[in-house]
Amino acid sequence: MKTRAAVAFEAKKPLEIVELDLEGPKAGEVLVEIMATGICHTDAYTLDGFDSEGLFPSILGHEGAGIVREVGAGVTGVAPGDHVIPLYTPECRQCKSCLSGKTNLCTAIRATQGKGLMPDGTTRFSYKGQPIYHYMGCSTFSNFTVLPEIAVAKIREDAPFQSSCYIGCGVTTGVGAVVNTAKVEPGSNCIVFGLGGIGLNVLQGLKMVGADKIVGVDLNDSKEEWGRQFGMTHFVNPSKVEGDLVQHLVALTDGGADYTFDCTGNVNVMRTALEACHRGWGQSIIIGVAEAGKEISTRPFQLVTGRVWKGSAFGGAKGRTDVPKIVDWYMSGKIAIDPMITHVLKLDDINKGFDLMHSGESIRSVVVY
Amino acid sequence: MKTRAAVAFEAKKPLEIVELDLEGPKAGEVLVEIMATGICHTDAYTLDGFDSEGLFPSILGHEGAGIVREVGAGVTGVAPGDHVIPLYTPECRQCKSCLSGKTNLCTAIRATQGKGLMPDGTTRFSYKGQPIYHYMGCSTFSNFTVLPEIAVAKIREDAPFQSSCYIGCGVTTGVGAVVNTAKVEPGSNCIVFGLGGIGLNVLQGLKMVGADKIVGVDLNDSKEEWGRQFGMTHFVNPSKVEGDLVQHLVALTDGGADYTFDCTGNVNVMRTALEACHRGWGQSIIIGVAEAGKEISTRPFQLVTGRVWKGSAFGGAKGRTDVPKIVDWYMSGKIAIDPMITHVLKLDDINKGFDLMHSGESIRSVVVY
Repeated sequence: MKTRAAVAFEAKKPLEIVELDLEGPKAGEVLVEIMATGICHTDAYTLDGFDSEGLFPSILGHEGAGIVREVGAGVTGVAPGDHVIPLYTPECRQCKSCLSGKTNLCTAIRATQGKGLMPDGTTRFSYKGQPIYHYMGCSTFSNFTVLPEIAVAKIREDAPFQSSCYIGCGVTTGVGAVVNTAKVEPGSNCIVFGLGGIGLNVLQGLKMVGADKIVGVDLNDSKEEWGRQFGMTHFVNPSKVEGDLVQHLVALTDGGADYTFDCTGNVNVMRTALEACHRGWGQSIIIGVAEAGKEISTRPFQLVTGRVWKGSAFGGAKGRTDVPKIVDWYMSGKIAIDPMITHVLKLDDINKGFDLMHSGESIRSVVVY
Repeated sequence: MKTRAAVAFEAKKPLEIVELDLEGPKAGEVLVEIMATGICHTDAYTLDGFDSEGLFPSILGHEGAGIVREVGAGVTGVAPGDHVIPLYTPECRQCKSCLSGKTNLCTAIRATQGKGLMPDGTTRFSYKGQPIYHYMGCSTFSNFTVLPEIAVAKIREDAPFQSSCYIGCGVTTGVGAVVNTAKVEPGSNCIVFGLGGIGLNVLQGLKMVGADKIVGVDLNDSKEEWGRQFGMTHFVNPSKVEGDLVQHLVALTDGGADYTFDCTGNVNVMRTALEACHRGWGQSIIIGVAEAGKEISTRPFQLVTGRVWKGSAFGGAKGRTDVPKIVDWYMSGKIAIDPMITHVLKLDDINKGFDLMHSGESIRSVVVY
């Protein structure tokens, strides 16, 4: 069949909107009509050439929502007509990781997904006979895409695509880090570093679970209003703090935070986030993706005296199990998404969405097909 | 009253055995006759001048066992005749840390303890009218010492002092890191770096809780026999591994260890210990104390993909609650201590105990009064 898609033919070039060929789903795969897709920093990271493992030509996009249109042989979990969110972190429920009950990092299709291929080692996309790589197992910048059955979460049909697509990455990454990775208890004092889209979703996750002090830290004062909209109780602009930032934050949180979250990707901020944790039990969660080659450091004394350093990928969420729950939380008003969708674009304008992100004007731009 | 003690008059000098003055217990304090004390690397660390906060003149020693001989006003938890283990990490059961239920790092008397003083800000020891500092709140290198009530654990009276004193630090630090900090589950694959006294106690803790693979790592081949005696199932000498040590350990543990323990204090080993953890859930516990100024580092990707970095002090044990349990485990044969007590000395020979430790000849030297 044919599908319209935004193709990344090479790094550092704008995407090109073309019509290309898409092979139907093979055994264990599903064809999904993407109805909406967010544009995430990770797409830009790859397009801008920072990802040393980035593959071209490829179809980027990993934050979508759509409708199953066809299923391959043996598919039992979803059927044509089902509404789904594609999962760049699949959930096979059979690999060592899934069965451990300790992680969401399913390894069933990791090897091929990292190579831009479907589990059988081939691509479904081609343009003028040339194969086009898949991206993060999703490729939501195509109106139609093919995914393994284990890489789609079935969601309720009354959830609007335009906002629920954001649950495919940003919302789940932020809210999930609070709920699944940190398991924040009511009454906790928390600090969130970086109030972009992920940071705002951490904030509203903290509000949802009943945290007490919810401190937001950002160098940009314009983020304060955004933060307060999503549950932030205190705002700190480090450039306006006299003296040591860690000491300031420790004082603000009665001896240090129970949980801190880095949503910046800056390794120096990650250190601050750890050291602002409460002696004895404070946990710091790294969500941001650091530049290649950068390392985090601290004195081991910080850990020996009880602080814990961990990370979170896709919010620790098991995609097929947890993503539908987050859709429910959105639909019942426990979390908000609509105010974060600052720009809605057509596929033809997708490059504008990247510009908006780079300039910092958008929280989230969404392409609606 | 008078007591015989080994006094550290200044750094980098041998201890001197003298008779000095000891004031009796004030309110909330107890007088303990120390019956046996281990000589720990931390004592040597201070005596050798590496601890920038080390105070002199002082009475070192923090790994003791003895008998309460007198109690001050208001003491209700112990009585004369009770057998006790002094606690350098007290348990007041009333401070924010104790009440959190999340840490053993009681803060009730931290400020004065760090200054070598009793909670009222004075010392009980003096020599020729000159005050002598307490050390880690214990000063077990004195035949009699005074401790706050919250800093003694009452233990059963049939436990021999010569071995139970080791529970005052080394045994609890190692076994407790497994039981309290890591909470290792049966069937786990684990790696222990550094097979000194702490490492051996981690090994036997792992054996006690039913770990599967218990890998010991040490540059000294003579540690292999020691390790196997305490539950080690595999021995790795890094100097004999061809290629990358992390990869070797990951392969040996079926994809990485569920738990790793650093008992070396070497920050490079700490990194290896983290990176040898299983993707998705492996936890690395830092037990060793690093040199001043040294820092641990890794790529944040290691954490984002599910590894957890934490530390353990005094084995995460709440002294008054958990130490008596460990004494029970020793008495019932769940853990062994006697084979680790390689040298038994009189107080007059205490400097020989330091020499034995520095030369690596001893696992644990114990002074019996």
